[in-house]
Amino acid sequence: MSIRKPSALFLAVAVLLAGAASAQDTKSVAAPARKQASQKSQSSTIRVENVSPEIRAIRFSNPPLNFIVPETLASLNEAVKQLSKDERVKVVVVTSDVPGFFINHFDMGEFPDFLSQFADNGKPMWVDLITNLANAPFVTIASIHGRTQGGGDELALAFDLRYASKEKAVFGQPEVGVGLYPGGGSTDHLTRLVGRDRALEILLTGDDYGADTAEKFGWVTRALPEAQLDEFVAKLAARLASFDRTALATTKKQVNAMAFPPESALLASQGEFAKSLSWPGVQPRMQVFGKMYQELGPLKVESNLGHYVGEGNKQLQAQQAAKQ
Amino acid sequence: MSIRKPSALFLAVAVLLAGAASAQDTKSVAAPARKQASQKSQSSTIRVENVSPEIRAIRFSNPPLNFIVPETLASLNEAVKQLSKDERVKVVVVTSDVPGFFINHFDMGEFPDFLSQFADNGKPMWVDLITNLANAPFVTIASIHGRTQGGGDELALAFDLRYASKEKAVFGQPEVGVGLYPGGGSTDHLTRLVGRDRALEILLTGDDYGADTAEKFGWVTRALPEAQLDEFVAKLAARLASFDRTALATTKKQVNAMAFPPESALLASQGEFAKSLSWPGVQPRMQVFGKMYQELGPLKVESNLGHYVGEGNKQLQAQQAAKQ
Amino acid sequence: MSIRKPSALFLAVAVLLAGAASAQDTKSVAAPARKQASQKSQSSTIRVENVSPEIRAIRFSNPPLNFIVPETLASLNEAVKQLSKDERVKVVVVTSDVPGFFINHFDMGEFPDFLSQFADNGKPMWVDLITNLANAPFVTIASIHGRTQGGGDELALAFDLRYASKEKAVFGQPEVGVGLYPGGGSTDHLTRLVGRDRALEILLTGDDYGADTAEKFGWVTRALPEAQLDEFVAKLAARLASFDRTALATTKKQVNAMAFPPESALLASQGEFAKSLSWPGVQPRMQVFGKMYQELGPLKVESNLGHYVGEGNKQLQAQQAAKQ
Repeated sequence: MSIRKPSALFLAVAVLLAGAASAQDTKSVAAPARKQASQKSQSSTIRVENVSPEIRAIRFSNPPLNFIVPETLASLNEAVKQLSKDERVKVVVVTSDVPGFFINHFDMGEFPDFLSQFADNGKPMWVDLITNLANAPFVTIASIHGRTQGGGDELALAFDLRYASKEKAVFGQPEVGVGLYPGGGSTDHLTRLVGRDRALEILLTGDDYGADTAEKFGWVTRALPEAQLDEFVAKLAARLASFDRTALATTKKQVNAMAFPPESALLASQGEFAKSLSWPGVQPRMQVFGKMYQELGPLKVESNLGHYVGEGNKQLQAQQAAKQ
Repeated sequence: MSIRKPSALFLAVAVLLAGAASAQDTKSVAAPARKQASQKSQSSTIRVENVSPEIRAIRFSNPPLNFIVPETLASLNEAVKQLSKDERVKVVVVTSDVPGFFINHFDMGEFPDFLSQFADNGKPMWVDLITNLANAPFVTIASIHGRTQGGGDELALAFDLRYASKEKAVFGQPEVGVGLYPGGGSTDHLTRLVGRDRALEILLTGDDYGADTAEKFGWVTRALPEAQLDEFVAKLAARLASFDRTALATTKKQVNAMAFPPESALLASQGEFAKSLSWPGVQPRMQVFGKMYQELGPLKVESNLGHYVGEGNKQLQAQQAAKQ
Repeated sequence: MSIRKPSALFLAVAVLLAGAASAQDTKSVAAPARKQASQKSQSSTIRVENVSPEIRAIRFSNPPLNFIVPETLASLNEAVKQLSKDERVKVVVVTSDVPGFFINHFDMGEFPDFLSQFADNGKPMWVDLITNLANAPFVTIASIHGRTQGGGDELALAFDLRYASKEKAVFGQPEVGVGLYPGGGSTDHLTRLVGRDRALEILLTGDDYGADTAEKFGWVTRALPEAQLDEFVAKLAARLASFDRTALATTKKQVNAMAFPPESALLASQGEFAKSLSWPGVQPRMQVFGKMYQELGPLKVESNLGHYVGEGNKQLQAQQAAKQ
């Protein structure tokens, strides 16, 4: 599969958007991330901790908005590959160090870099990462205390188990609302987990979903009171860590063989996402959302994204009606 | 695939049934519908309304029992094809104008006509309609305020999103209870949406299911209080209508490619339905239900169909036991 | 597919375990069952009752722990085959006569005998039984008043409908917790019914799940108050028994064709289970659990199995840490 190069038009829009946001909040959006892409530094967005020989924590941090940047994918993929070689590791718990967000969507200013990011084996970095997560001989557990949006949700969907704070976790796939295709695997995962119609509702509306609805739909494994979440995950991790690694890994492998999206589907989805960057609905929406970022600040928009996706489209619709 | 012609035996039974019901209630069952088959008239059971350039409503009305008649399929298919050509249309909301019913089952007196009804492309009309709904470049939303039974439920299952009134919506697939095969796609849709065992319970018992159970099982997207349903659907439609049509249509297409029953399955199911018209259990049940229609009136039976399917079979069982 | 012979090592462990338990409680575990294997006697663990010409009950009884023994599989398979030939039979209700347990896991002392147990057609007995259940021309209903663990849960998953007592039914797949692969079909069934992540949670933790959670996940068809369960099942069976057998059987067949694990998957799973008997984690866990059986008594352990699977692994982990 060939990944089509995003159009020059979008590059301009994306740079505009990234610039607009940076101007308003120097810590935000694309600026700090861009430098880190494809370099390993002390300031990686990914940190691996030894909880015990059998249990590791992967902590993600890219304040203030916890956007995924290209460095995130490279570092996370490297961590997964290294941990897969360590025969002691049975459980990996994934958490966020940034209040309010678990893993947020891709930094929109970095789309071109994501699409030109490849693993050592020549596969698109995202697809290699997701496949490595599926095949890892340890159990991955997402402990979700905050917003989980777009590519961040698609990462969450690639972990084995997902536990969400009833009070704080929020889920959404905003891509369609900004004119894009949700191409990181959510179409495959959600259709399997929540059924055709609920997957369509989630993907087409781009709206926010609380943890209780996510649990009812089967989007997360369980929703738990915020006060109990860490203890629940710690106990679960400890239990699994006392089990036999071969039994855990073989059973995980078999279930994933049945229900994890195959690499061909992940590649096709990424290709569709790349194509969607040139769709006619993207540029006008990027302009509207860039302006909204400037006026309201990225944190306010990102913390109520489902709502603002609706507002942005409403504004665009009003603008277009006024022109006619 | 060749659709087997229903046996002469069944034709006689069906005509008997239609006649019996018509005698009791002149507005009911087959009589008014038969005339409309394959002709387009002012009195179509399908009406298309422009809510806005982007949003259309398809209103179904065939009082008093809202049976699907051959004209319904032809008109609905034509509406879907026309709306698919209109590049402004992003959302189509499907509703009923008949209190008590969303879309009811096929008019049993018209089974032979349904099976000899073909689209211009030579495909069985039902299969062509369902396929066209799956492929339509707009989002279809069922707003369900009443009973949704048999073929009506199978139509509902072919829409993209299903919102049901907690107080008024009721779902059921009564086919097996009258000795027939549920051949309009419910086997495929329900097995995917609700799982093997719940699909079996629904299809084998032919019983009624309230909206809350339907939501719990994943049969409908959401159940909502009657008082909120219309506003919920209107807001959802307005939100989607402000989004980019390419993004909506491409995402819908991908999800449907994964989870919508393929045309081959729809054809096989219709073939099995056609065969089932000659199964030995049909004729005695048609006689029992025809008598029940006469004695209680079609509205009473149709408004509590799950119960009366059980009662009819109990009567038949008692008759057969008495003979031995 | 060739089923690999379990290692001599495991045989020794299994005999040790069976012996240990028998010493403590002469009625328990392997001893009484071993004699019955592949012989039909008055003392079969399976009893078929005529509720009516159309409804049969299969009652399972192997007190005190309701372990599946080889005789169970042979007798149950024979019953299913005989009932499939009886054209009157439309519904088979499966129940237990032993308080506290529906169908418990395989008797661990009998693993070698299970793996060398073949049906007349040369297929592994377990695979033949499960396939015959899927293909039976009657509807199978599990009425579940007690614990349903391991192979017992995998049998339950192979029935068509599952109704569970809210107060008394408990579900679990403890295999991974004792170092084994859950190879009786649970990977296939659960992944389809509850989704990838919940299937992983159930299979990897080996923990207990109450009926309400099982219903929420879609593991059982419905959870009902203990006081209503028998009446609910009796009414459901009576309703189905009044329906046409061809309609019931054809619809069941179609749904199972879509969603029942194919024989190839069942064979592969059994092969993986056979291999897992030689996995390094099994022997140390069998020793720990054998000791736990001796000290606490099998009934106490089996009646809180999820908990004790955790405790046993914790003890083993502590032992291993002390050695280092």
